[in-house]
Amino acid sequence: MIHCAVLGATGTVGQRFVQLLDGHPRLELRSVSASPRSQGRPYGEAATWRLDGEMPEDAAGLVVEDAEAIAARDDVRVVFSALPGGEAAPVERALADASKAVFTNARDLRLAPDVPLLIPEVNPHHLDLVRGRTGFVVANGNCSGIVLTLALAPLHRAFGLREVHVTTFQGLSGAGYPGVPSLDILDNVVPFIGGEEDKLETEPQRTLGTATQPADFRVFPTCARVPVREGHLESVHVRLGRDVGLDEVRAAFADFRGPPEVAGLHLAPERPIHVDDRVDRPQPRLDRDREDGMSVTVGRLREGGGWLRFWVLGHNTLRGAAGQSVLNAEYADAVGLL
Amino acid sequence: MIHCAVLGATGTVGQRFVQLLDGHPRLELRSVSASPRSQGRPYGEAATWRLDGEMPEDAAGLVVEDAEAIAARDDVRVVFSALPGGEAAPVERALADASKAVFTNARDLRLAPDVPLLIPEVNPHHLDLVRGRTGFVVANGNCSGIVLTLALAPLHRAFGLREVHVTTFQGLSGAGYPGVPSLDILDNVVPFIGGEEDKLETEPQRTLGTATQPADFRVFPTCARVPVREGHLESVHVRLGRDVGLDEVRAAFADFRGPPEVAGLHLAPERPIHVDDRVDRPQPRLDRDREDGMSVTVGRLREGGGWLRFWVLGHNTLRGAAGQSVLNAEYADAVGLL
Amino acid sequence: MIHCAVLGATGTVGQRFVQLLDGHPRLELRSVSASPRSQGRPYGEAATWRLDGEMPEDAAGLVVEDAEAIAARDDVRVVFSALPGGEAAPVERALADASKAVFTNARDLRLAPDVPLLIPEVNPHHLDLVRGRTGFVVANGNCSGIVLTLALAPLHRAFGLREVHVTTFQGLSGAGYPGVPSLDILDNVVPFIGGEEDKLETEPQRTLGTATQPADFRVFPTCARVPVREGHLESVHVRLGRDVGLDEVRAAFADFRGPPEVAGLHLAPERPIHVDDRVDRPQPRLDRDREDGMSVTVGRLREGGGWLRFWVLGHNTLRGAAGQSVLNAEYADAVGLL
Amino acid sequence: MIHCAVLGATGTVGQRFVQLLDGHPRLELRSVSASPRSQGRPYGEAATWRLDGEMPEDAAGLVVEDAEAIAARDDVRVVFSALPGGEAAPVERALADASKAVFTNARDLRLAPDVPLLIPEVNPHHLDLVRGRTGFVVANGNCSGIVLTLALAPLHRAFGLREVHVTTFQGLSGAGYPGVPSLDILDNVVPFIGGEEDKLETEPQRTLGTATQPADFRVFPTCARVPVREGHLESVHVRLGRDVGLDEVRAAFADFRGPPEVAGLHLAPERPIHVDDRVDRPQPRLDRDREDGMSVTVGRLREGGGWLRFWVLGHNTLRGAAGQSVLNAEYADAVGLL
Repeated sequence: MIHCAVLGATGTVGQRFVQLLDGHPRLELRSVSASPRSQGRPYGEAATWRLDGEMPEDAAGLVVEDAEAIAARDDVRVVFSALPGGEAAPVERALADASKAVFTNARDLRLAPDVPLLIPEVNPHHLDLVRGRTGFVVANGNCSGIVLTLALAPLHRAFGLREVHVTTFQGLSGAGYPGVPSLDILDNVVPFIGGEEDKLETEPQRTLGTATQPADFRVFPTCARVPVREGHLESVHVRLGRDVGLDEVRAAFADFRGPPEVAGLHLAPERPIHVDDRVDRPQPRLDRDREDGMSVTVGRLREGGGWLRFWVLGHNTLRGAAGQSVLNAEYADAVGLL
Repeated sequence: MIHCAVLGATGTVGQRFVQLLDGHPRLELRSVSASPRSQGRPYGEAATWRLDGEMPEDAAGLVVEDAEAIAARDDVRVVFSALPGGEAAPVERALADASKAVFTNARDLRLAPDVPLLIPEVNPHHLDLVRGRTGFVVANGNCSGIVLTLALAPLHRAFGLREVHVTTFQGLSGAGYPGVPSLDILDNVVPFIGGEEDKLETEPQRTLGTATQPADFRVFPTCARVPVREGHLESVHVRLGRDVGLDEVRAAFADFRGPPEVAGLHLAPERPIHVDDRVDRPQPRLDRDREDGMSVTVGRLREGGGWLRFWVLGHNTLRGAAGQSVLNAEYADAVGLL
Repeated sequence: MIHCAVLGATGTVGQRFVQLLDGHPRLELRSVSASPRSQGRPYGEAATWRLDGEMPEDAAGLVVEDAEAIAARDDVRVVFSALPGGEAAPVERALADASKAVFTNARDLRLAPDVPLLIPEVNPHHLDLVRGRTGFVVANGNCSGIVLTLALAPLHRAFGLREVHVTTFQGLSGAGYPGVPSLDILDNVVPFIGGEEDKLETEPQRTLGTATQPADFRVFPTCARVPVREGHLESVHVRLGRDVGLDEVRAAFADFRGPPEVAGLHLAPERPIHVDDRVDRPQPRLDRDREDGMSVTVGRLREGGGWLRFWVLGHNTLRGAAGQSVLNAEYADAVGLL
Repeated sequence: MIHCAVLGATGTVGQRFVQLLDGHPRLELRSVSASPRSQGRPYGEAATWRLDGEMPEDAAGLVVEDAEAIAARDDVRVVFSALPGGEAAPVERALADASKAVFTNARDLRLAPDVPLLIPEVNPHHLDLVRGRTGFVVANGNCSGIVLTLALAPLHRAFGLREVHVTTFQGLSGAGYPGVPSLDILDNVVPFIGGEEDKLETEPQRTLGTATQPADFRVFPTCARVPVREGHLESVHVRLGRDVGLDEVRAAFADFRGPPEVAGLHLAPERPIHVDDRVDRPQPRLDRDREDGMSVTVGRLREGGGWLRFWVLGHNTLRGAAGQSVLNAEYADAVGLL
């Protein structure tokens, strides 16, 4: 077993890490960190569990530490970071310097030149950036960006991408807890999410590019919050690199697979992308949990006037956050980096 | 007073007509029609009132008739039609033949060459198609289309339009009653509305063109239903006819006004378009009732890479349906067509 | 394996039956019936699947029959009925006459003197009414009634019951599909459910009495529909037969178990009643799926002025409907009635 | 005009005060107070407006003060308090000592023997407690308590009350802003509101008693939060002092009026209680705004077994909070106390 720690373990993404590591066949949670007022207390007391089901018992007994203590622990090899954006970079860098393999969901280092912005099915070669180092940071993208990028990947690979317009319908859990006040969102849509559009304008290109050069297409995003618990649904209008028919597009989505090493991983879905041809799909409530929330679902493929239009849906705290980080660690393990 | 009738008066759009005519300074409701099982009964019994407040008392006492009876009434000059799409055309044509001025919310005749698809602030000259006739049909667009067209009008007029991408977040009342089952939409978004995208691809061009020639730009729509009672919110990405700065765009929206005859009309808003510069507006719940639901609100203007992006919100059963029809009648009256 | 059929299989409760029988270790679905327009078609075409996940493949291939055909099939021993109230009695009686064991969720025969109104953990002895017969009908109560009765059972057994006041917060799935229109329930509560209060006034006494004599206490119900997908939450104020402390009450709930034969059944929860002492529990979304929706959760026990007050929550289509029927069949099997 | 101030003006109840005073025929807002970080800034900057419509312009220009400054202003006669419970008492006492007439929505002084807990239609004589004094405090009850008390008043007056069981369905605005996180309440009910049941156990008796002696009946409350924006709906089961028929009860509700001085007041509804005999009313969304939110609606009267059962609904921030305070001030003015 590879021993792990979770930073920012009391927040909602931190709890997802704890949940995903419970009963994991290769990764074992040994330490959690959180803010000073939680330190020194058992995790079971310090955290109010906000996910379905109950807090894993083993985790409940862990005493909350600070990140320095984790850096000093010889028995911890992998650190998952759910630290808030803006605070994460120096802590994660220090842990890498202390020879930890850090897999982060924070935004701070996503565009750093030595940090892979990884989706193993899409850009496994980006891990070359950290090969040969013991301590390193691997990032995953923003929730709405991962969902979009997965859908764009087969199009980019097969046809090239010139321009992407995307309008998002983002679930509430993306804002954490307490997050969005109910008075703001019941019978309403909020047509703004701070910082979200900036991320969509840059992160997909980083993942779809080479390890050193972002891909060359433009994303025009518009982001909104909707009264849906989980799941990010995205309306995507794409101008491809060349004319293609819908059958080719459907096949590109449906046939998309990661490299062979991904296939057997614990969190890896059988198919990263499902095409659902029913006229009114994908829907957040019905499709967000497909393959345990690690697949995205594409639907309503339409084509005309030089534009391909479709919907894509993904689970924002599984494939779109903690699940992606854990999958990244599993893949790094499979290719000998841990 | 001009005497009026409402077709399809028991449905939700029909009820909006009844509500808007209550206490109207120029238009007086004298007759209602509905399906055979309602005919012969007082409207107050035949209809279950679904709008806020109580059913207007005068309307409650009207005996439900059939459309033929209305055609035969000499005292009725104006007929508002809330008939279902697919059934409306022959009835509306027969009423026009019987010298009635028909203002319809139904889709059937929207693209007929002799029927203006009218928004008085936008294309008043289309009424030339019916000038000199006693009986005629004037249509208004689909709810999401009216909201979009109002926002596009100043852009089309000032800068020209080349291409429009729009993703809609449409309120529940647009589906009528009983409409969308609660089990389908609570904690969910439904990424499909039957027939809606087809309308958005054709109707705005009709309204923004000349009376005989649709405007020449393309609309790429994606439509979704969200758990919001009323209000259609739309994410719009537009390629204009020439490069413009955001200040010019903002001014075009804010300065947009209809012809002078519109100004004093009962349902005409002071400004058809409001620009709200707050970062998280427009929102359906907060902004749909602006100017009694007859204004649309534009927000989050952004520009770059050749695309103008913004949100527009409008009230789908007021400006987007019955309110538009009544305003059309008011305008026809003001310019001497009644 | 015992071969089974489901009546009314295309509705939401019927689908729950189909779902629960999929992969069942003792019961195997062999036939489905539905209304004439579905008959002769494969179930997979006739029914639009409304539950989470996908329709079981084996069920999808069954051809929809009518109830007469099922009565005539020698290979079907058990029939689960999701027929609508008001239509169920003659069909169910005919099937019993044809030597079938019918387990019904319909209301029609719940108070018939020869029909057990069964919850195996509560009144297993009621099965004496059908012992020795090959064909018979066993009913389960109304959804809100089962949840209430389970919570009342230990109190009735240990302390006696004099008077029960209950106000329900009932989930949307209890109304079937399409059920409650979204326009009626978004941002709203509907303080009326047709027929529901009548059932709560009579069914708990039937289950908690002897096989021939209802228990002697009065229920005063008030029922409401709330914007919650699944789960019935009930505020209960009870006057017990004698003065008791909260510790005794808590123990009565927590220690409540059915007869030994229940313990190993496929759908039987480990504990039919869970006491949750957290201050803000039970909550529909967090607690409805406890023990796969077959346990109820009790919380906020308070006592004073001669009244015991508490909340109880149960899953209305699992323990409160189809799950209860299947558990009843499992129990009948365990005690040799099948 | 009588000059007024509002304490705690930036919160949601404070904003309701500001809204209700805008354009008031007798009361004029001259000062607002809030916490230190708002002091010295214009109200329009210090407060984010959370109510429908826009912030009143006159209020926007007021500079936020502290309570001491208000105490020292000779031009302010009336102070409305939206201070948080637990902080209000000393401030309100000091203002009364400074000869201000304080009308408070805070809980702190509701049961103080020299403070009327006033609903003018119900217990106008409680104002005798402050008659002859220049400075004084008048309180209004908790939101759910006011709604309940209004419904109980005619029953108490006509028939006597012995015991009240009440289960509440409370709207989100009762928790203020940001209040209830959306993740806690979407597709859910929260069966607990801190401190709420305690208030319901004591406040109605205070209002319905004499000025010095609480009424002698017991209230057994259970309180829950539901996903509804505004409006508190309450299921009430009452044991009256004597046997009565439903017609008598209906008449007692419908005929209930306050003293003559109430009739002409600005915020006084024509009828404090409306009886709605439609089978599925009252509903929060449809009935909360009746008579501008100052009436409560009673429905579904049922009787049997010694218990009267009914629903009552009221607007929690109008009749249930700020509206009640302002009405109290209007009444005090009408009877010569200002």
